[in-house]
Amino acid sequence: MEKMYSVDSLHEFTKSVFLQIGCSKEDADTATNALLSADLRGIDSHGIARLTGYVRLWEAGRVNATPDIKIIHESPSTATVDGDSGLGLVVAPFAMKIAIEKAKVSGTGWVAVQNSNHFGIAAYHAMKALEHDMIGISMTNASALVAPTFSIERMLGTNPICVAVPSGSEPPFVADLATTTAANGKLEILQRKNQEAPAGWIQDEQGNSTSDAHALKHGGALLPLGSDREHGSHKGYALGAIVDIFSAVLGGANYGPWVPPFPAYVPMPENQPGKGIGHFFGAMRIDAFRPAEDFKKHMDQWIQRFRSARPVNESQPVLIPGDPERWMEKERKENGIPLLPAVVEDLGKLAGKLGIAFTD
Amino acid sequence: MEKMYSVDSLHEFTKSVFLQIGCSKEDADTATNALLSADLRGIDSHGIARLTGYVRLWEAGRVNATPDIKIIHESPSTATVDGDSGLGLVVAPFAMKIAIEKAKVSGTGWVAVQNSNHFGIAAYHAMKALEHDMIGISMTNASALVAPTFSIERMLGTNPICVAVPSGSEPPFVADLATTTAANGKLEILQRKNQEAPAGWIQDEQGNSTSDAHALKHGGALLPLGSDREHGSHKGYALGAIVDIFSAVLGGANYGPWVPPFPAYVPMPENQPGKGIGHFFGAMRIDAFRPAEDFKKHMDQWIQRFRSARPVNESQPVLIPGDPERWMEKERKENGIPLLPAVVEDLGKLAGKLGIAFTD
Repeated sequence: MEKMYSVDSLHEFTKSVFLQIGCSKEDADTATNALLSADLRGIDSHGIARLTGYVRLWEAGRVNATPDIKIIHESPSTATVDGDSGLGLVVAPFAMKIAIEKAKVSGTGWVAVQNSNHFGIAAYHAMKALEHDMIGISMTNASALVAPTFSIERMLGTNPICVAVPSGSEPPFVADLATTTAANGKLEILQRKNQEAPAGWIQDEQGNSTSDAHALKHGGALLPLGSDREHGSHKGYALGAIVDIFSAVLGGANYGPWVPPFPAYVPMPENQPGKGIGHFFGAMRIDAFRPAEDFKKHMDQWIQRFRSARPVNESQPVLIPGDPERWMEKERKENGIPLLPAVVEDLGKLAGKLGIAFTD
Repeated sequence: MEKMYSVDSLHEFTKSVFLQIGCSKEDADTATNALLSADLRGIDSHGIARLTGYVRLWEAGRVNATPDIKIIHESPSTATVDGDSGLGLVVAPFAMKIAIEKAKVSGTGWVAVQNSNHFGIAAYHAMKALEHDMIGISMTNASALVAPTFSIERMLGTNPICVAVPSGSEPPFVADLATTTAANGKLEILQRKNQEAPAGWIQDEQGNSTSDAHALKHGGALLPLGSDREHGSHKGYALGAIVDIFSAVLGGANYGPWVPPFPAYVPMPENQPGKGIGHFFGAMRIDAFRPAEDFKKHMDQWIQRFRSARPVNESQPVLIPGDPERWMEKERKENGIPLLPAVVEDLGKLAGKLGIAFTD
């Protein structure tokens, strides 16, 4: 049912799409690498399946293909960046690079971003710090799909946080998590298959737990990590709120229910208090705290000790955050990326419209 | 059943206990303020009820009442602090102060701490940043009570994170959360009342969910925020792991199952890779990102908008993180702090042993 595509062929196609909407060669390459990292790591909901959505935002005038991205405020360890309505896939790498440069000089670097768009997967940006022996942090807000504890109203996006930590001989620790019980991508899979959602993932328009995977279309909402008050949903709500505040209140982007929606056909919220959507990035140089080699030795020990924790079932060992995505990336680099028929059809139409080739 | 004590009388008593074990006047005052902030904010498990436990650690030679706390590594925006086995209640304020001083100069300040002990509640330390128009961050690891997803073995503490954000006319946003479904203090309340624990809080020695609130005494474990894999426990595990890595691998403290236990009678884990327990603190100057007045205006709007989100029940409005603790603090400052008979008895014995007065 799924069809396999080589990473190279999808890279060439995606890059040609970004070029076609007016991106520079460099930006097209940057955006392509960021977008396809999702497909490589198995986060199919955030990869090439969204390419048409990005183009629609450009058609609607909400994405600027030739943005003048710049620093509008800074200190030795911080900066605020105006993304000039650029693709988040281009704005975020620009901002993460500044965080890394600041960290080289000041020990750490922290960058808040306004006036951006969706940036793909958080892990791609945080992991940029690893090659510099730095801890990388990335987060973004997103349009409101999540109801805080006690709320019927959707007030927060799935607001992911990623923390990437370098190690020595072990692979890095990469935790990339939506601050909800279930990521929206997982819900979309259930919707496509017409399957029920587990209790605790979503609530209906009355605020009651529901197994209807389509409840979001009828006024329902995703639930914060923890699912309900008794199981700590106020903590998931607080985490999503922290991401919203760091990403948008700090940098001057829109927050809460005012965050622009990803689908270009959904009208913009009225009376927006900021510009575009917001991100927040951090880089911490390991040797600003202790010699990097010491840290890596201990990080290896941390990873080995957790990996060898006594499991509930011998057949399912304890994992280190980032393991499944790394395994997926290795496999897909070797064997290619599978695309669903609906995605292939969608990309074919996009290719036709833009007058470029998509070999299916 | 509970007896009321004025904040002043508990302050005087607690301070005299810290003086009696050899703390300087300044340190005794610092430790008392940190400890009693837990009672004021309603986190009774972390307040004066633990005072005897701290003294036992001192008796066991695990707490140094006259520590030489110092910076052992630094950069413009970072420092690593050796707590010299001091009370966490003294070491943490020292480290948070450095974070704030670094932020004044470099925009942000980040401090990792080794060789410390329990620091009370995370919120007390993070909130120190608020008066400087900074965002405050604090976290600490703790002895292992929590089983990662798929693990029978306890590998992490309840590892709390606090983020405190200044606002304008609204009270500040203060999210202080253990990275578990339920804090250990809540479990202790059920144990005292011999009540069952809700499903999803703990697992038994086989790794199965259990309602036995005493399961931790028989090889069971607390569960990470999310409770089980289907409800995102791998995210709670990742958050607890991030706290452990920032607090201990970065600063040279013990991590994972090697973190020293709080009860002085529990033997120390063997082959410890670091020193004492670890904390991590951050301070971010608001005006390193945007003018503080702009930020506060938008933070007020954020708070007002979330507070007015449409509630599931009209009788239970949506809360802002920090609301319940702030209400409790106001009430207890006015009416005093209630102590359980067992705590009163325990403090009476402590007073007798140290030859000081505890008026019950």
